Amino acid sequence: MIMLSQDAYPTRTQQSAAILARHDPVVYDRVSRAQTVQLDQEQRASYQQNGFLMMPDLFNAEEVAFLFDAMQRMREDFTHAGRPEVIAEPGSGEVRSIFNVHRLNEIFANLVCDPRVLNVAREILGSDVYIHQSRINYKPGFNGKEFYWHSDFETWHSEDGMPAMRALSCSILLTDNSEANGPLMVIPGSHHHYVSCMGETPDENYKKSLKKQEVGVPDEILLRYLADMGGIRSCTGKAGSVIFFDCNTMHGSNGNITPYPRSNVFFVYNSIDNQLEAPRSTLQPRPEFVAAREGIAPLSPKALNID
Amino acid sequence: MIMLSQDAYPTRTQQSAAILARHDPVVYDRVSRAQTVQLDQEQRASYQQNGFLMMPDLFNAEEVAFLFDAMQRMREDFTHAGRPEVIAEPGSGEVRSIFNVHRLNEIFANLVCDPRVLNVAREILGSDVYIHQSRINYKPGFNGKEFYWHSDFETWHSEDGMPAMRALSCSILLTDNSEANGPLMVIPGSHHHYVSCMGETPDENYKKSLKKQEVGVPDEILLRYLADMGGIRSCTGKAGSVIFFDCNTMHGSNGNITPYPRSNVFFVYNSIDNQLEAPRSTLQPRPEFVAAREGIAPLSPKALNID
Repeated sequence: MIMLSQDAYPTRTQQSAAILARHDPVVYDRVSRAQTVQLDQEQRASYQQNGFLMMPDLFNAEEVAFLFDAMQRMREDFTHAGRPEVIAEPGSGEVRSIFNVHRLNEIFANLVCDPRVLNVAREILGSDVYIHQSRINYKPGFNGKEFYWHSDFETWHSEDGMPAMRALSCSILLTDNSEANGPLMVIPGSHHHYVSCMGETPDENYKKSLKKQEVGVPDEILLRYLADMGGIRSCTGKAGSVIFFDCNTMHGSNGNITPYPRSNVFFVYNSIDNQLEAPRSTLQPRPEFVAAREGIAPLSPKALNID
Repeated sequence: MIMLSQDAYPTRTQQSAAILARHDPVVYDRVSRAQTVQLDQEQRASYQQNGFLMMPDLFNAEEVAFLFDAMQRMREDFTHAGRPEVIAEPGSGEVRSIFNVHRLNEIFANLVCDPRVLNVAREILGSDVYIHQSRINYKPGFNGKEFYWHSDFETWHSEDGMPAMRALSCSILLTDNSEANGPLMVIPGSHHHYVSCMGETPDENYKKSLKKQEVGVPDEILLRYLADMGGIRSCTGKAGSVIFFDCNTMHGSNGNITPYPRSNVFFVYNSIDNQLEAPRSTLQPRPEFVAAREGIAPLSPKALNID
């Protein structure tokens, strides 16, 4: 007897860590929106196979300067402002991330609608989309800390009640991301597998986990297995390049002792057909700035205006 | 009036951090030992200019397997042995380094005499040499911690009383060192400049500094200046490759969240004409396993035997 009500992606249980099959598509069937086609066949196939796609130089130097400036101004305005959207580096207290930037700042509100990124999300997810989460990741120089391996979907499913793997992350590089300054590392192909993690989630886990994840941490043997199969790819690129990656791609980054910050703005597009339900646990929903539930509406493409 | 007795390389003072000129050669004039010539003109010039030299595949696969095995056995024998030569990772307690391996283990005692490494040291330093310090750096996977920027000479001069810049480090890679697993990073050209650091050295500083350096830390603005001039080079290579670098080359490494350990064996060759004096402070000399003073004798080349 098949129990239809059973969770397809169990995690944070007392059972052993395990690798389970993915039940959802990676690239969704195209709906009839011929005008939004952004990727060629090779790019679609690469994303399907590897779970990520690098698009070099999607934004030009003037746009990068404009966005970099907006990012720096936000950091200045939000440092010591005591706002919950601001996450400090463990240790130094420097600003590590600011969440909800697409609602807090008009420039980033416009940026999420730029066709170069929005239409890729719509095409891959095969539907209209909205922003589930946004943030700036500063990763300062000299003392930037690592972020350990994780699948975003494992958290979004268990802590936010995201039903299916029908979301993607879009990271717009606002400084050069080199091998040396702690670039995003992904395990190609890992998105085909769901790594169920051990351990129950404590209340208000997000307050800790946004700095350093302690539950939802993949087992070391399973990580080794995935990395042996798929390798590890460092997503390096010049400022203005964009990385798209599937919500279930295993990723992380090393720290950054170089003098050069590794700063990116980061949007999570979710399918309008994949809106959040109740968390898969007895947990309270995480706050709106981490996981959007209110005022959800499809985004419409509109080119970024830097004048 | 020039004060001849003044320290050419002052550091750990209450004065401002500063960049001072190097007074010593990088590649020393060759003495008459034609039989030990190991480097070609280009390699010598590159070392002179950049302060380091990568030599890929200096040891073959059988030799690497033999040395890797010796390294792993040492780790097993020394874990929880309560020996001062063993340095644990901050946090996890895993073995980070074992010092003095050329005296504690016959295989590494032989390895320091192998002509492929010893003769490079003799050629660059223009004299007979001995081992000032040796160690294995394990840098385990998943939780390997960063090591912040430093010049070795700054420590060896101030804490050990090494008179001149006439020493070099030789790192023999025993696992593949990739961009992702925290490889040695160097700032090319930085060895031409001496970065004087602020702050007085506490007693028994080495007990802390071998884990995490807190004095002798270069100023961030000076680091940025050196990196802007010289760039940052990641010294990646396959197991069996060897990196030689000058005692005053600014170097460090990021952490390692990959499943793959980054393990190297590391020898410091010092010129027999550059033996340690009293520390440049009122400090007690560091222990013998960190800074050799006893039984110093020139090393003679002898090929490694793995049978």
